[in-house]
Amino acid sequence: MCFCVVDDAGTTAKQIEGTPFTPPVYTGKEWPLSEVRLLAPMLPSKVVAIGRNYADHVAEVFKKSAETLPPTLFLKPPTAVVGPGAPIKIPEFATRVEFEGELALVIAKPCKNVKAQDWRSVVLGYTVVNDVSSRDLQFADGQWARAKGIDTFCPLGPWIETHLDNVDDLPIKARLTHEGVTEIKQDSNSNQMIMNLGEMIEFITASMTLLPGDIICTGSPAGTAAMEPGDFIEIEIPGVGTLGNPVERA
Amino acid sequence: MCFCVVDDAGTTAKQIEGTPFTPPVYTGKEWPLSEVRLLAPMLPSKVVAIGRNYADHVAEVFKKSAETLPPTLFLKPPTAVVGPGAPIKIPEFATRVEFEGELALVIAKPCKNVKAQDWRSVVLGYTVVNDVSSRDLQFADGQWARAKGIDTFCPLGPWIETHLDNVDDLPIKARLTHEGVTEIKQDSNSNQMIMNLGEMIEFITASMTLLPGDIICTGSPAGTAAMEPGDFIEIEIPGVGTLGNPVERA
Repeated sequence: MCFCVVDDAGTTAKQIEGTPFTPPVYTGKEWPLSEVRLLAPMLPSKVVAIGRNYADHVAEVFKKSAETLPPTLFLKPPTAVVGPGAPIKIPEFATRVEFEGELALVIAKPCKNVKAQDWRSVVLGYTVVNDVSSRDLQFADGQWARAKGIDTFCPLGPWIETHLDNVDDLPIKARLTHEGVTEIKQDSNSNQMIMNLGEMIEFITASMTLLPGDIICTGSPAGTAAMEPGDFIEIEIPGVGTLGNPVERA
Repeated sequence: MCFCVVDDAGTTAKQIEGTPFTPPVYTGKEWPLSEVRLLAPMLPSKVVAIGRNYADHVAEVFKKSAETLPPTLFLKPPTAVVGPGAPIKIPEFATRVEFEGELALVIAKPCKNVKAQDWRSVVLGYTVVNDVSSRDLQFADGQWARAKGIDTFCPLGPWIETHLDNVDDLPIKARLTHEGVTEIKQDSNSNQMIMNLGEMIEFITASMTLLPGDIICTGSPAGTAAMEPGDFIEIEIPGVGTLGNPVERA
């Protein structure tokens, strides 16, 4: 297990010394990407998530307007994180488990009280997260920690994109394959966020210190739907990457 | 900074090699307890908390019965943890910040799907936690992560008590000193818990893997009240310890 830089062509993984938090020093070892198993690109000390950050998703899940239910903050436990290709495992007691395709931010350094306009200075890069959510438990519990915190309920990856210019205009798509049929379920854009990236980093760091590797889930657009064992769910953010995971019974 | 064993008399801190997760190996170094600064006894990978676990506290905060609002699960971020004596720092935007004195469990080893009757096998010991909560943010956000997750809002300590027979019958007291006057605000007992320790470990580990050092906050009894900068808050659980923290403006 090691950290690698994936080249721009997406074909080669080049081993680096240490971690991604310092400029890469190459060891000289490299492998074809097709022969590498990608793990989650980071094991965060915390996963901070912004809920209700797309008006259409607020409407579909809560049957209310985004004015009535503004964005809110919740946490997913680090033990929920899995990498690309790893199965999402649904326990028997979670009876309606949905995907939520989202852009994720990876924090570069310890930070507190970051102003919105300075947000890029604390971000290492971007990845894709599937904020898997058991809707039945979410509404039964009131608090979302369990519904969104079950082991494997935070697929993350496939890697950290460190150069990205159009963060405010990124397509976000979710494709669900069920019984051999693939359907596009989410088809939105980061330009639909209510609280933008700078605002959310100011909002979060007014309360909490963020640490290197911490993940921010930036919210899900509409189109979330139930997954069942045997399905395959793929979240694509062009320019960032595609995160695909099979669904299994725990 | 090192791990120590505090002797039964509570007067001496004896340095150990490594961590508390293996039987102690003494280095021979020791100090009078009065001359050491105690830090939080653990830096957890996650803090899992059971909310609404005392009927009288459900009534005082939510104005509802515990039958209507059963226990629920939430997370506090590890960055909120501070040790005994460290200040609780209240930011300007948190306008009603209350203490919540609670018994905390420290997890001994990685575990999943633990049965209630086996709970002691995964617990390293017991400590005291103050689940500091900004009531205004708690109700405004709906989700509790921010209200209970602000830096310094998880005082923990003073140490881990590894031998305790009467976990189901532990007095829990909170004493608040305001403008030089000390009042007992919480005066309850762990026998008032709705979900007991075994049940909560089975409930949590049905969803989440717990890791060594993870903390479980077992819920607060009634009597929580607002704290202001200049106050001092002390939570006492006889047989476990006393956790005291000053309150400051952030």
